[in-house]
Amino acid sequence: MTKRIGLFGFGVVGQGYFQIAKKQKEKWIPDTIVVKDQKKRRPSDIKFSYHAQDVFDKNPDYILELISNTEEAYEYVTEALKRGITVISANKKLLSAHLPELISLQKVFGGKLLYEAAVAAGIPVITTLETHFEEDTIVSIEGILNGSSNYILSRIFNNGLSFDEALRMAQQKGFAESDPSFDISGSDVASKLNILILHAFGKFVGEEQIATFGIQNLGEDEIALAKSLGLKIKLIAKAEKDYRGISAYIIPTLVEESNLFYGVENEYNAVKINSEHLQDQFYQGKGAGSLPTGAAVYGDLVKARNGFSYNYSKVNFDKPLDEKLLNLGIKVLVKCRSEEIIENNIFSTEFIERVDGFYFAVGKVKPKSLNKLNELKEVSLIALPDYLSAEDILHELKEIQKSGELI
Amino acid sequence: MTKRIGLFGFGVVGQGYFQIAKKQKEKWIPDTIVVKDQKKRRPSDIKFSYHAQDVFDKNPDYILELISNTEEAYEYVTEALKRGITVISANKKLLSAHLPELISLQKVFGGKLLYEAAVAAGIPVITTLETHFEEDTIVSIEGILNGSSNYILSRIFNNGLSFDEALRMAQQKGFAESDPSFDISGSDVASKLNILILHAFGKFVGEEQIATFGIQNLGEDEIALAKSLGLKIKLIAKAEKDYRGISAYIIPTLVEESNLFYGVENEYNAVKINSEHLQDQFYQGKGAGSLPTGAAVYGDLVKARNGFSYNYSKVNFDKPLDEKLLNLGIKVLVKCRSEEIIENNIFSTEFIERVDGFYFAVGKVKPKSLNKLNELKEVSLIALPDYLSAEDILHELKEIQKSGELI
Repeated sequence: MTKRIGLFGFGVVGQGYFQIAKKQKEKWIPDTIVVKDQKKRRPSDIKFSYHAQDVFDKNPDYILELISNTEEAYEYVTEALKRGITVISANKKLLSAHLPELISLQKVFGGKLLYEAAVAAGIPVITTLETHFEEDTIVSIEGILNGSSNYILSRIFNNGLSFDEALRMAQQKGFAESDPSFDISGSDVASKLNILILHAFGKFVGEEQIATFGIQNLGEDEIALAKSLGLKIKLIAKAEKDYRGISAYIIPTLVEESNLFYGVENEYNAVKINSEHLQDQFYQGKGAGSLPTGAAVYGDLVKARNGFSYNYSKVNFDKPLDEKLLNLGIKVLVKCRSEEIIENNIFSTEFIERVDGFYFAVGKVKPKSLNKLNELKEVSLIALPDYLSAEDILHELKEIQKSGELI
Repeated sequence: MTKRIGLFGFGVVGQGYFQIAKKQKEKWIPDTIVVKDQKKRRPSDIKFSYHAQDVFDKNPDYILELISNTEEAYEYVTEALKRGITVISANKKLLSAHLPELISLQKVFGGKLLYEAAVAAGIPVITTLETHFEEDTIVSIEGILNGSSNYILSRIFNNGLSFDEALRMAQQKGFAESDPSFDISGSDVASKLNILILHAFGKFVGEEQIATFGIQNLGEDEIALAKSLGLKIKLIAKAEKDYRGISAYIIPTLVEESNLFYGVENEYNAVKINSEHLQDQFYQGKGAGSLPTGAAVYGDLVKARNGFSYNYSKVNFDKPLDEKLLNLGIKVLVKCRSEEIIENNIFSTEFIERVDGFYFAVGKVKPKSLNKLNELKEVSLIALPDYLSAEDILHELKEIQKSGELI
């Protein structure tokens, strides 16, 4: 059975898809490939188009939306869904911004939208939430969801590189963009967590509401502290639900060796799901790369062909999907140049200590303060595991200071 | 939409299913529950039946087969499939013995058979192989697939218990049967690996062909050796495919800290899949227990309701499903009382050393010898990671001998 397929975008993911499709039993080669930049050098044996309408004119069965521009993607995907076409998307920014509307369009016009590749690339987390966990109650979902940040942290902790050296290396390897701010500020992770929250809890919170703090200000001092405690720092995204509601945040976190995230290195992603019946599960796999991401797109096409679609069965469509997040304190170590920042944002403070021109404090931060703090230069925050006391941290900071490791 | 459901068996898994179903939006409570033992004490508020025919008389939409007897299960499942009924089974022995026939019956009569709970309990490995990996080429699949054995090994390595103490503790906790031989001899794992091989490679090898060596003869000496090298022993099942064919075996294996299986403890199971495009993925979750296993059964029912079935798309139905396994040597440390056993079964021997009445040797063993060796008392085998040299092991054995740790 031949399928007419239209493809938008021929970047890393689109090329990965194309390379895989050519080798398969079912060579789902797109009839039309629409790209934007007419001047870019492209393979001469593939015919490209520069007009979105060319895709729709061919009356496709499937559309693959693998571009990065959110506005254009919105236009193509909504147009396709209104025509009842099945769409595969890898565009986390689009999905995170417009999921409620995109779900409605599926319901109204009968098209389908699958997007496994948009979160954690090769790990089938959305499919698993929609099938295996469909009738289980999810308590929490947690993950390492950005390959670039994780690669940088691996190079810092395993190879002794500085943050700047590690970032340059990530860029050389193609894991980070020339402007890496989306990745290292946590913004990319917020889109993904926002999507996961919808599939785990049936609610749409919106990524601007998700408390997000990135790794961009991580300094030598916090790194030395983590190392001297035998711990690593990982950029962890977490959402949990209890009787009060949902809380969600993204923050660099100290993790101990027994934590499953401790061993997740380089461009790998991982997701931990805790539920009432299936209990705790952990999935790890490549979170970036042309082939794993392209394979997730190809896999969605196979699933769609088999009649699979997301049921969104955790969503109660009789109520608004929107949900306000809880604003519960997170225990953190904060480092900054100004005592005022600490006084204005940290509560239940256990100590404030001045070391070599920086203020260090352990206390709690409200998620609502995080996004604002994330904009400031020279403010660094790390979430602390429960077992670590403020005394241990202060003691260790002083030891590091004595040995002259602090800058 | 009410579904008529017949349930065979009310043991650990059946009770887990029942407990979950009662709480769900869709309370899929069985119309008929058939149990065998009329004298066993059971909940007074549930009506039980003792005749299999009672299930069929109700003309059920779904049958849950959650018993342990293979012959009876075969009878009920084939009968149901011949009537085109959808069956959910957790019976790895049944599936491992009869999968080719059970696949044919689905094709001929249009019934469906799902069995996620039969392998690695709560981990959705079969569903993921059948969906996400449907069109990817699997290179290898590896796992910790028996919760009892893994629990015993955890207690030995983390709590310093002897094998016998750990086994007793596993029995007290309900993780091991009063006759634990199926679990610790690797037989249970062989059934599961046989099922995974069919879904990963599309071939039926039969569990009697899978080289299997259990943990039942693991002695203080090998445990001391592993510990002194900073390693753990895990019962690893592995199947891999290359241009020559498929090889598969189950054997206690020395694993280093960087191996993902190193941190899989207690009743947890884990599966590592390596494929051409999605590359390496790792899944960990509860591999035993009433709720996780019952939830996997409930999950299959939800998937079946959604129209999901296994496509067996890696199977080439124009050819016989049967496949002979390759017989490639595995590098092992062997310990036994007789030099003859080593001479007859180990090749490329790197050393034989007599220590306190035992012979220790490092060399290679053919998978075909493993099942026979597994029957012998006082023969212990451990697979070695590539990086460990025979010299390192010999040196460490001598150190242990000097310090008097060997029995």
